[in-house]
Amino acid sequence: MKILVDAMGGDHAPEEIVQGAINASNDSDIEVVLVGNENKIKPYLRASKKSIEIVNAEEIITYDEQPVAAIRKKKDSSIVKGLRLLKEGKAHAMVSAGSTGALMAGGLFILGRLEGIDRPAIATLFPTAKNPVLLLDIGANSEIKPKNLVQFAMMGSIYTAEILNRENPRVGLMNIGTEKEKGNSVIKAAYSDLNRLENINFIGNIESRNIFDGNADVVVCDGFTGNIFLKTIEGFGMYIFKQLKKEIKSNIVYSLGAALMKPAINKVRASMDYAEHGGAMFLGIDGVLIKCHGSSDRKAIANGIKAACRFAEANISEKLKQNLEVTL
Amino acid sequence: MKILVDAMGGDHAPEEIVQGAINASNDSDIEVVLVGNENKIKPYLRASKKSIEIVNAEEIITYDEQPVAAIRKKKDSSIVKGLRLLKEGKAHAMVSAGSTGALMAGGLFILGRLEGIDRPAIATLFPTAKNPVLLLDIGANSEIKPKNLVQFAMMGSIYTAEILNRENPRVGLMNIGTEKEKGNSVIKAAYSDLNRLENINFIGNIESRNIFDGNADVVVCDGFTGNIFLKTIEGFGMYIFKQLKKEIKSNIVYSLGAALMKPAINKVRASMDYAEHGGAMFLGIDGVLIKCHGSSDRKAIANGIKAACRFAEANISEKLKQNLEVTL
Repeated sequence: MKILVDAMGGDHAPEEIVQGAINASNDSDIEVVLVGNENKIKPYLRASKKSIEIVNAEEIITYDEQPVAAIRKKKDSSIVKGLRLLKEGKAHAMVSAGSTGALMAGGLFILGRLEGIDRPAIATLFPTAKNPVLLLDIGANSEIKPKNLVQFAMMGSIYTAEILNRENPRVGLMNIGTEKEKGNSVIKAAYSDLNRLENINFIGNIESRNIFDGNADVVVCDGFTGNIFLKTIEGFGMYIFKQLKKEIKSNIVYSLGAALMKPAINKVRASMDYAEHGGAMFLGIDGVLIKCHGSSDRKAIANGIKAACRFAEANISEKLKQNLEVTL
Repeated sequence: MKILVDAMGGDHAPEEIVQGAINASNDSDIEVVLVGNENKIKPYLRASKKSIEIVNAEEIITYDEQPVAAIRKKKDSSIVKGLRLLKEGKAHAMVSAGSTGALMAGGLFILGRLEGIDRPAIATLFPTAKNPVLLLDIGANSEIKPKNLVQFAMMGSIYTAEILNRENPRVGLMNIGTEKEKGNSVIKAAYSDLNRLENINFIGNIESRNIFDGNADVVVCDGFTGNIFLKTIEGFGMYIFKQLKKEIKSNIVYSLGAALMKPAINKVRASMDYAEHGGAMFLGIDGVLIKCHGSSDRKAIANGIKAACRFAEANISEKLKQNLEVTL
């Protein structure tokens, strides 16, 4: 598998991105292609056991740029150049920790949408008390229509059935109550549409607090709500462990106890850690495009590259295409 | 202080509500008035050291009723009867763990709005690494306009300044990025309005993950987003502690460690516990109306009653009235 990696995207680019690419390439047969400023990438390439190809791209699209304008203007950016190579079939997937908006705009303009999908969504897996749940959208679309939620539900169902081998995946709609009258007008309309569709195993509204019980395989929401959910977990997880650390330090007996149970604490922490989970995928774009967290370190990037490889091997885009044709 | 308590609202009504009322009344000089079905309340009143007044109300408004219709129809419900007594000045505040929608509708129809406020909001305090932050709205308004967010910001500023004695309270707008272009159209419009107002110390957008840092005194959002935030914390907190318990049980050394540091774990858990925090307040309604979590136990109800007492003593409604007149 050949994976394009945007070496210039993310808070710790290019160093952590390049190191992550080296690590992924060193412990697998994945062929990595780095896209970005050659002079800035080269100094970090010494640690690589294999030779890694660089595609030079002089420009960088930053987080604060207007995505559509940036994609149109910066033809020599790592995002635009990488997506063009992916479109031309020069690689199987692309990984980036850069601007979500620019990746979405670039994905739409350069790779195109899957037939039947009006708006792609970013999907990611969250740990639960049972199996991981696929949540989408976690940030591509701040404002949506009911039909977008229905399409997210379809894509999520196909993904969990085909990639995670779940039978008849249960789809929930994130809401602030379980009753069908709850939520805003978009959600209410989506509820009745989802309820009518026979090829979706719709289990109704699900409150954010119940997502962790693991009784849904897929949860759909708009990108604003999904992003709030994602970042609340992130911030609250860090807060809890910080508070615990503070309490532990206040007393020698607690410190001893914490030392004894450290592996247990670390295991729970790790289950929340982005670095362990790899990236999130743009579903609905015609190609395998993986978005890593902006703050990704080398471990997260290496995991993102491996996830990209799995998605490409599983032929996710083809499976979505085939199955969407059937359901629409 | 005389506090009305809706004995019929909540998942554990009337037993836990009555017990909570008894506990609050036993360890303070608060005079509690229970509103609800006399025959159902009386059996639980034996534990009370003081005599507690009951106002009989035969009807109950349930969670799945359409709020406005229920308030209009069920004149003999605990919510409507309680709110009428509050309006008539027969008590200083009211506490209920019943339907949020019915309390909002009843509050608006019976108590009325404060001048200058189009939509009341539910406000509650969250623990952070520094001081608690006041978040509003956590569930009264699923769909709002920019002006509502501005009014929430005003009420939150007055509350934190007057009740929590914070000087020049910092107000953040919950969003999915810090840049001013982020979010949906309502949030973008509210951002520019808040930025223009001189009597609000607006610190810009705040991502949900950063709320726990404690660098804002007030965070405003629509009720849908606030409710997602609240319930994500609730569910994720329970999930983390359950996972930790599972890991601890898997190994005898971990169990020993956990036993040694149990008070530290319990302290962090307690900081997340609703029962510790008491209720949330409807800001913008002309009267002190406290909403407790639907799953409230006796401890949560007792805390809600004490919180109601503090708000009434601090004269929160009067302070909002006076200060809103100045700022509008």
